[in-house]
Order: sequence, then structure tokens, then C-alpha cells
Amino acid sequence: MPAPLGIIAGLGDLPVAIAENAMATGQGVHVLRLKGFEEPRLAAYPGSVVGLGEVGAVITRLKEAGCRDIVFAGNVRRPNFSDLKLDLRGAALLPKVISEARKGDDALLRILVGEFEKSGFNVIGSEQAHAALLAPAGLIAGAAPTEDSIADMAAAARVAAASGALDIGQACVVCDGLVLAVEAQEGTDEMLRRCALLPEAIRGTASARRGVLVKRPKPVQERRIDLPTTGVSTVELAAAAGLAGIGVEAGGALMLNRPAMEARARELGLFLYGFSPELGIGP
Amino acid sequence: MPAPLGIIAGLGDLPVAIAENAMATGQGVHVLRLKGFEEPRLAAYPGSVVGLGEVGAVITRLKEAGCRDIVFAGNVRRPNFSDLKLDLRGAALLPKVISEARKGDDALLRILVGEFEKSGFNVIGSEQAHAALLAPAGLIAGAAPTEDSIADMAAAARVAAASGALDIGQACVVCDGLVLAVEAQEGTDEMLRRCALLPEAIRGTASARRGVLVKRPKPVQERRIDLPTTGVSTVELAAAAGLAGIGVEAGGALMLNRPAMEARARELGLFLYGFSPELGIGP
Repeated sequence: MPAPLGIIAGLGDLPVAIAENAMATGQGVHVLRLKGFEEPRLAAYPGSVVGLGEVGAVITRLKEAGCRDIVFAGNVRRPNFSDLKLDLRGAALLPKVISEARKGDDALLRILVGEFEKSGFNVIGSEQAHAALLAPAGLIAGAAPTEDSIADMAAAARVAAASGALDIGQACVVCDGLVLAVEAQEGTDEMLRRCALLPEAIRGTASARRGVLVKRPKPVQERRIDLPTTGVSTVELAAAAGLAGIGVEAGGALMLNRPAMEARARELGLFLYGFSPELGIGP
Repeated sequence: MPAPLGIIAGLGDLPVAIAENAMATGQGVHVLRLKGFEEPRLAAYPGSVVGLGEVGAVITRLKEAGCRDIVFAGNVRRPNFSDLKLDLRGAALLPKVISEARKGDDALLRILVGEFEKSGFNVIGSEQAHAALLAPAGLIAGAAPTEDSIADMAAAARVAAASGALDIGQACVVCDGLVLAVEAQEGTDEMLRRCALLPEAIRGTASARRGVLVKRPKPVQERRIDLPTTGVSTVELAAAAGLAGIGVEAGGALMLNRPAMEARARELGLFLYGFSPELGIGP
């Protein structure tokens, strides 16, 4: 019997897709759902609920379950560290976590990855756990982007790279060269919702789509934890904001339920595109 | 009789403050309110309403009024260029405006300043028209910022500089080292409103304020048109987002009705601070 995949899971479709895939391949799973962020669709899998500060318990349970590969997946908000319930190992880690947290999310995540590796686990990325999630290169769905959209995608890729380098976020929207919005802690969905509220003079509409959402990883980020993710709702919110399409970094972003994303994009008249330096956009 | 100050005006408190000041000093004004963005409080001053594309008419009317110094002040949204009503001079300028607009707001504004200078006007900044608007250096109101707030202000100053260099915007919010929000086309008020909606674990509250809003000009921007502006509502929205204070670049940001801003900041428990390289933050 293969060692089951350990999933340390927050909310959302991503950990569910990974769990389903690991069951389908016969690997099996052990799912630790994080308290306060318990994804209901994961309740039926073997595993339990653990607190964010119970680092020792997480390690013990994953060992007892016989896990070797583990993956962090799903949405978790940064907690208020002073409210965390800590076990011994969590308490030992806390000072380092707090000091790294001031440097940004990415520094914080590196600490966690390091701690699990020290305990003998192999921390893998979501795309290693489930290769079909990774965005391919080139046109993925819809009509080929126009010259204006290519220019907007290239500008947005530059802005998102700079924004990522500063650990601000992984996404932005550019329309006709103008940066409409930059994602920080509010997340991509909220960013797209506010784009839909901007005056129509500076954005596209359902009948005259323009502007592009770009998502890409931070240039130096811990890719095993926090690759940017898109899904059907991303397509729908981008459509509502009047955008012409979505550009993701080929091999650097996750697409959840890609067949459904592609169908929805075609239906709404958006393109999905995996950009890469070879295609003239990036790195 | 001195030449009256020409004000090309959008919406908001800034053009009103400048007009009031020019009347108080005896200079007088000629106010051209931009169609679609007519500030009602300016209706009583000598002047008229002009369309955004009527560049020739604007120049003629300012000349007829005997203006030499002119100032651009107030909020105007970038128009849909294909809907603009143009006079001859506006039509001649349009191709250049459209191509520069793709490079961002700042490139667009430079074209406008250049056009008015070519016509013999002296384009001055709001702070030249009304020196009391400019943010001073050091603590402006409230208790001195804590060490954490100083660190957040310095981080936010770096993020805002990078964001400005990319022509994204002039403001951001940092709390405990985490970039909560970056301003783009939605404006500072909307950015602060969404900070208030973030989970309390990552932001401050009225009883435990933390985090800082920073506003500063873009590193290479056309300072005569678009200096970042703060007012009483900025203080109130920052307070509602749980922030500890507001940092503005000393000599690089405008404070509208500063006595009222200071009073409101003290009342709500926020600091106002003018940062500068001499004070250890910036450039």
C-alpha cells in the first residue's frame, strides 16, 4: 500500500480536488483540516481537525497515518497570533513565526515548510500532488487575444511581478495600459468585484470586452504552498468586470476544474491564456 | 490688478480651497469647470463650464480672462476618448493623448501640461497656488507613532514608491508588515473602506489601533497636477479601518483643511505624520 498523501487543508476547491485525485489514483489521503477553516467537503476523508497552533499534533498525526508526502492546500487567513492555542512545538515555533510574519506571508510560509521538512516529511506543491491543475502554455480557451489584450497582459504581468516581489499579492488588472486594480489581502474575487464598479469609460463591458486579469506567482515565492489559483468563479467575476480575458503564468498557476473554466470562458466570450517568456510575455 | 489665477477644475475640496485662497489674497480667479465633473461650490466664481475635449476653448477663455498662472485641481476620471467632444485643438492633440494614455495617467498629464505651456501659460502646482496645503515634516497631530507604526510607515513608503514607479497609484496600507491594500483606480477612500472589511486578526480596531496609511507622490510624477491629497474624510476612513495613523511625504502631499484634519485625528486617536529622508523614512 502506498503511503497516503497528507493534506493540511484550508477552505476551497483546491484541497478537495487534490483529495479526490489522490483517492482516484489509489494513493489515499490523510486530511488535517485547520480549525476555523474546515472545508466541509473534506469531512468524509480519513483525518481530523487541528488548530493552527498545534504544530506538534499535526506532525504526530501525519506520522501515525504513515504519510511521507504532504501538501498544504486551501485558503487560510493569517491568524491573530496572540489568540492562537499552541501546543509545545507550536509555542517553540511562535517567536520565529511572529518575526518572519512581519516580513510578509511568504517568509511565514517558509518557516512552516522548513519545520515539516525537519520532521522528515517531503513537502510537495499542489501541482505535484495533482499535475492536471497546472496551467499550460498558450491559448487555453476562447478566441486568440487581440493586440491590445496582449499589450495589457504583458503590462499586467510586469505589474504582478513587481507586486509579487514586494510580497503584496499575485494578481492585477490592466485595461488599455491603465492599472485598474492590484490585489493585496482582499483576494482576487474582491479585486474583480471592485473593477466591475469602476466607471465604464476606463473598463470593458459585456458587449465590448477589454482589459486582462493576470495571476502569477511571486518571483521568489515558496511555490509549494501558495501558487496562484483560478477557477470558474474567477472567470465569472472577470466577465462581470468587462474583461477580455485572463492570463496566467504557464506552469506557475493552478486552474481548478479546467474543463468547466474553459466552457464558461467560451460561453462568456473571454480568453484564457497561459503566458510564458517563450510566448513573449514574462518572466 | 494682478492677473487672476486660472483654475481648471474637477470635483472636490481642493479646487475650492485654491479658489478661496486666491480670492482671499486679492489675486482673483477664473474657473473653468470641466463638464461631467462640475464642482457646485465653484459655480459662483467668474468662469464657465468646458468639455474635456475643448482644449482650444479652454486656452481662449483663460487668455481672455487675462490669466498667466494656471492650476489643474480636483478629481476627474479618465474619459472614454471615443465619446469626447473635441474642438480643433483637442482633435489635434487626441492621437498623442491616446498613445500616452496607454502608458498611464502620468504620461497623459504631461501632455496636457506641455500643451498649456506651449500656449504661454505658467502651469503651477496646487501647493504653489496655496502653500498652506503642503504637508510639513514630522509629527503633525496625535501621539508620536510607536516603533511598530514607524516600521509599518517605512514599509508602506517603500511599497507606495514602487507602486508609484509603476504608475499604479499613490497610496497603500501596511499593518504589522503585511500589505493590506494597494490603491489603483478605485481611489484612497475605497481602498480604506475595504481595509475595514478585512478580518480583525490582520488589522487594527478602534480599541487597539495598528497599521498605517501612506500617501506619497509617484517618484517621477508630474507634481504640478497630481499630488496626493488627504482630508478629513481620509482621517475618518483610516480610523474606521482600525489604523494607527496616516503618513504623508513631507512636502509631497496636500492636506485639505489641516486644522480640521488635526482635530479629527486627535479625537479619533490617530497620528498624522509627515515623513522625510531626514526623519529616516523615504525618499
